[in-house]
Amino acid sequence: MNISRRMNTTLTSVPGFKVSGVACDIRGNNDGRLDLALIYSVLPCTGAAVFTCNKLAAAPVRLGREQLARTKLFHGVVVNSGNANACTGKQGLEDAKVMRQLAASGLGCGADAVFVCSTGRIGRPLPMEQVVFGIDQAIADLGTTIDDGFRAADAILTSDTCRKHCSRTFEIDGKLITISGMAKGAGMIEPHMATMLAFITTDASVDSAELQQLLQDCVSKSFNAITVDGDSSTNDTVILLANGHSGVRLTPEDVGWSAFGSALESVCIELGKKIVGDGEKITKVVEIDLIGAANSNDAESAARAIGNSLLVKASWYGEDPNWGRLVDAVGYSGAAVAEDTIHLSYGLDADHWVSVFDKGFVHLENKPLWESIVRQKTFCIRIDLGQGSARFKLWATDLTDGYVNFNRSE
Amino acid sequence: MNISRRMNTTLTSVPGFKVSGVACDIRGNNDGRLDLALIYSVLPCTGAAVFTCNKLAAAPVRLGREQLARTKLFHGVVVNSGNANACTGKQGLEDAKVMRQLAASGLGCGADAVFVCSTGRIGRPLPMEQVVFGIDQAIADLGTTIDDGFRAADAILTSDTCRKHCSRTFEIDGKLITISGMAKGAGMIEPHMATMLAFITTDASVDSAELQQLLQDCVSKSFNAITVDGDSSTNDTVILLANGHSGVRLTPEDVGWSAFGSALESVCIELGKKIVGDGEKITKVVEIDLIGAANSNDAESAARAIGNSLLVKASWYGEDPNWGRLVDAVGYSGAAVAEDTIHLSYGLDADHWVSVFDKGFVHLENKPLWESIVRQKTFCIRIDLGQGSARFKLWATDLTDGYVNFNRSE
Repeated sequence: MNISRRMNTTLTSVPGFKVSGVACDIRGNNDGRLDLALIYSVLPCTGAAVFTCNKLAAAPVRLGREQLARTKLFHGVVVNSGNANACTGKQGLEDAKVMRQLAASGLGCGADAVFVCSTGRIGRPLPMEQVVFGIDQAIADLGTTIDDGFRAADAILTSDTCRKHCSRTFEIDGKLITISGMAKGAGMIEPHMATMLAFITTDASVDSAELQQLLQDCVSKSFNAITVDGDSSTNDTVILLANGHSGVRLTPEDVGWSAFGSALESVCIELGKKIVGDGEKITKVVEIDLIGAANSNDAESAARAIGNSLLVKASWYGEDPNWGRLVDAVGYSGAAVAEDTIHLSYGLDADHWVSVFDKGFVHLENKPLWESIVRQKTFCIRIDLGQGSARFKLWATDLTDGYVNFNRSE
Repeated sequence: MNISRRMNTTLTSVPGFKVSGVACDIRGNNDGRLDLALIYSVLPCTGAAVFTCNKLAAAPVRLGREQLARTKLFHGVVVNSGNANACTGKQGLEDAKVMRQLAASGLGCGADAVFVCSTGRIGRPLPMEQVVFGIDQAIADLGTTIDDGFRAADAILTSDTCRKHCSRTFEIDGKLITISGMAKGAGMIEPHMATMLAFITTDASVDSAELQQLLQDCVSKSFNAITVDGDSSTNDTVILLANGHSGVRLTPEDVGWSAFGSALESVCIELGKKIVGDGEKITKVVEIDLIGAANSNDAESAARAIGNSLLVKASWYGEDPNWGRLVDAVGYSGAAVAEDTIHLSYGLDADHWVSVFDKGFVHLENKPLWESIVRQKTFCIRIDLGQGSARFKLWATDLTDGYVNFNRSE
């Protein structure tokens, strides 16, 4: 089935969804920055969500988990940036409930039908006067233009340098299905949900249980396969709402199911890559293709050890093909490996590989090639552990002095 | 029993040990830098050693493991800096054996009685012509002066800014026992053996099995409780040689055993702290005292998550008491914890604590105090998970733009 990538579209490209983004000065800077977004479907939606694994999850995440377990149909999401509402005790939970109730009342639905999300600094009480004002404004501003979508995508950003959104469409029996998403990074980015939020809408009609399973599968190959700094946040959330507006009902038995899954995975990977590519003060994005692992845990551990090694990341920044640090990281990752089984290659893309270290032998004759590869803004590294057939693909960034200075204080 | 800290002493303060440090241009810079050290005891020694857990361990580590398993008595250690002899395949193993054989021949002992260690860049063949020259010279230069000891301590350094050594003495039945150690850092420093080497000598007489167990216990509380960058190296090694020159034989049943254990632990902790305090381009050393964990794994995981978090380390550099990042790290560490059980305090030392975040409540009234604490060069952080009684203490550094730039290329 033919899946089209739609340019310059936002959540509002999915029929039946209205969105808004408003400025209510949650940061207290009085700078007019957009900081509260609302997503709304008049039609009730089945919903799926994946939340952070952080045990000290923020108040809205704890609310969201409960709602996902007990609610059948959803109407929307209210999100603020500038304050994470995390480590805020009982007051934080009360504040998140007030956000939910206010949004639901304004939209005319039950409180359980609205997800709440927050992102920003941890440990500060939400400025509720501003939030209340913002929610009222956001309800009044709901719209379906592309500009409404851009404002919503802008309102969820924190240290991001650009808005992140994408869409896919495909046809089933002459009917168009659309999947659109928006997301934010850009620090505390590590798999198992980084400080990242992503909101995806579709007009397909899909049952909750199947939607949840599909979203989890897609998240594991996209948002959970990126790393900027190895810090997983208290607030990470991916929410998918399906309002059925297209009139096309999809189940795993349908011919269109695999197209729907591919389109959703494609949206998730594009948003994930946009997050990693906009990582704080990064200069490189490196695709780590870990193959030949004894099992999937080993594949993931070894890929993450490389992608989170300070020394590896610093050498990428310096465009120094210091492959010894990479091999060192694989060695301490816990994955089964031996010097006479490992094979490390650098590539400009997934088809052109240059052998570097092969079972104890260094291909010094290829050194000029590796050196040119690590000077690219994006490149690929393939590590074959030579132990089996498991694989994990991770997108990682370099580590710069700019990142350190950016995060010295907030 | 009274344990004395001896100032300005080196390995040569232990009777019966001779050492040397020579320059043989292993780095190829022709700069006269000391880069090869030899440690020798005329009396045969029982030996204990702890090696890196890295699965791609360097050739000398692989040799050392075999020797430890099959050799009863040792006479010395030969060490080079400037080249790790790691990821060097069969040739690397041959080169390490040649180093061992040459040193043993010169010292007039069996090859198995000499440990070999290397530290430096990974993946480059050892320049054997220089190494051979260096070993000859080191044998000729062996001596017992403090200056010989300093030269040996200097010869093992890589990116360290200063030599690291310390000694302890105590008396049993009027006989003096000495324990002396030297070590090197300063990058790829993480527990479970960082790129660090430490060599410890004593004139006590102790059986191998008991020496090994004691060394492992001490390493877990010292060298395995420090982190600079979270990267464990291919070459980490701690070696302890006991030559019995004092005539005092110690077993776990003796009254002197606990003094010996305390003195050894004290030497290991002092060397460990010197390594972390000389971490590459650091400005802060932070003692993380993780208490109240459900079990020892949780205690260690939570402490390491804090000590290795880029965001936490960057905020320490910025002297920003961004405690939310700390709590975030605890939350994703995998340790059992909840917002209403965790208690975080900052301290100037182990006796004076300032409460920051206590079971969901932020002690904002203490903010001026935290802010003054994080401006100190060294300070303590105590995290009580409120889940049990397990504890882990970790010494960690900040992360600076200087570290990143220093490691951009090598």
